[in-house]
Amino acid sequence: MNTNASDDSIHLPVGSPPLACVDIGGTKVAVSMADHRGILGKVSEPTAKEGPNDALGQQIIRLIGQSCAAAGIPVESVGSVGVSSCGPFIFNDGLVELATPNICGGMAGKARGLPNDWMSAVLEAPLRKAFKSVRVENDGVGALEAERRWGALQGVRNCAYVTWSTGIGMGLCVNGHILRGKNGNAGHGGHIFVSDNNEALCGCGLIGDVESLVAGNAIARRFAGEGFADAAVLFKAAREGNARAIAIIDELCLVMGRALFNITALLDLERISLGGSVFWHNRDYLLPRLQAFMKGKLPSLTDGLEIVPAGLGERVGDYAALALVMR
Amino acid sequence: MNTNASDDSIHLPVGSPPLACVDIGGTKVAVSMADHRGILGKVSEPTAKEGPNDALGQQIIRLIGQSCAAAGIPVESVGSVGVSSCGPFIFNDGLVELATPNICGGMAGKARGLPNDWMSAVLEAPLRKAFKSVRVENDGVGALEAERRWGALQGVRNCAYVTWSTGIGMGLCVNGHILRGKNGNAGHGGHIFVSDNNEALCGCGLIGDVESLVAGNAIARRFAGEGFADAAVLFKAAREGNARAIAIIDELCLVMGRALFNITALLDLERISLGGSVFWHNRDYLLPRLQAFMKGKLPSLTDGLEIVPAGLGERVGDYAALALVMR
Repeated sequence: MNTNASDDSIHLPVGSPPLACVDIGGTKVAVSMADHRGILGKVSEPTAKEGPNDALGQQIIRLIGQSCAAAGIPVESVGSVGVSSCGPFIFNDGLVELATPNICGGMAGKARGLPNDWMSAVLEAPLRKAFKSVRVENDGVGALEAERRWGALQGVRNCAYVTWSTGIGMGLCVNGHILRGKNGNAGHGGHIFVSDNNEALCGCGLIGDVESLVAGNAIARRFAGEGFADAAVLFKAAREGNARAIAIIDELCLVMGRALFNITALLDLERISLGGSVFWHNRDYLLPRLQAFMKGKLPSLTDGLEIVPAGLGERVGDYAALALVMR
Repeated sequence: MNTNASDDSIHLPVGSPPLACVDIGGTKVAVSMADHRGILGKVSEPTAKEGPNDALGQQIIRLIGQSCAAAGIPVESVGSVGVSSCGPFIFNDGLVELATPNICGGMAGKARGLPNDWMSAVLEAPLRKAFKSVRVENDGVGALEAERRWGALQGVRNCAYVTWSTGIGMGLCVNGHILRGKNGNAGHGGHIFVSDNNEALCGCGLIGDVESLVAGNAIARRFAGEGFADAAVLFKAAREGNARAIAIIDELCLVMGRALFNITALLDLERISLGGSVFWHNRDYLLPRLQAFMKGKLPSLTDGLEIVPAGLGERVGDYAALALVMR
């Protein structure tokens, strides 16, 4: 397993067209260029949420121009644009638009205080007008591709990348095929139900899904009142022996363990790679507990399963967009 | 949707080699032949569980001979053997063996009173010695293939077949690829966790998985003490207005609804076909409740989803093995 991937290891061959790498999150958009020198010219901005519903697409085109300028690359020479984006998506004439309650105010009746009434954010259509080659995937798929190319999932045909961070996301691969589904939304594994706990409301509107119970923002929301302001505080307390913190994390591991078991029973996986800030900063604490949850459960499915930390560590997301378009 | 498939609609072209169709369950093995006249020569026996661990494989070879004799087909002319079997499987040198606690006594220390200590039942290896072309799949995959070919999933690239019967099984298809996984066990969706209910022990050894809570045998086990001896009694009582029966079925629908939602969120499906005896005999009662559970949950994933009764009705399983080998 390659745990030492660095920018130095990810250079395009001299002479191949530069690639634009676009990372779209609910709060921030980041763009960088990749060429024979490595990854460079990174620029980022808050995600565009005002004006017409192609504002985000236009923002990305502008940022690609800025990133090219910063990297000393003529924008005309860009070969492909890889976009790793938060979902969910909808397809419109076969082109991806974002149907994301974090960005589109029209989806929740402006209840979130978003300054727009978009039902979707047009994305792939304007990019395809500006660039000859574009690939948009949800960020779970992007991260999975990065782990399959450079990280802990190299050569593994039945695998998943699971991020345990501010939110929960997954990328899934079975028999060598990356799962996409009807609108490219396969892998929304943060939104499955694994318990009867109805106390927690998810950003997606569901009550009691995995993300609402264990994601970084859920930890803060559920347990700040008990003195655990965020995941870092909670894990520090558990490491110091705080019984309540230990019990809370045991519950988090039960929920996440069930989610990992469920994808194993449904997809008969060989390896699950785990990343994301909550997991990564506490992987020594969490990994053995998640592995223990799985042990002995439906042995013909779990005996051949490995659960491992992401080979790209905290930088899975940095390489997601590049992995989508690099040959 | 084809809801009128019959034996008459499933004839091989005149002159094409006859196909052997093998259906392996935990209690019974059934074999029939398919040729230009239709499906014929059906023979069945209790599943072989004594002697050496290739007893089941040898039983099937013998039954194929008997089925051929009954159908007036020379066994030498058999083209392919399709086997739709209960799982889970393990691969040994790339060939399927059954690692099924229902059949293999060695898996649970003879706790089930099985007359053998097999850790696996050798299956594909003896069949391949006897026949030139063999395809073994778990019965969820077989049923899915039948529904995709003749039933309610024709032409649907992102779909699942879910059986709600004595047990719970699934076959899954994403972007036109049938999911198999590392040992062909993808689709073990009866064994996912969707609640905290710890009262029910599953045949697989898990506590509180979907099958342990809602399968036909679980209904009998959980609610016989309340006067509901089996699913038929329970649903009859609910239709007659029995409040406790209605509440029990609402809970069953919550569990099954979560399972269906989970595969939708993970796989971004277009259509789920539902069959199996518990569902089929009560589809008027269950279908609207399952559809209602889904409605409005993560709309970008569920808006484009249809939940429908199996196009092949109660006969999905009858065509599963044939679907695996018919061109």
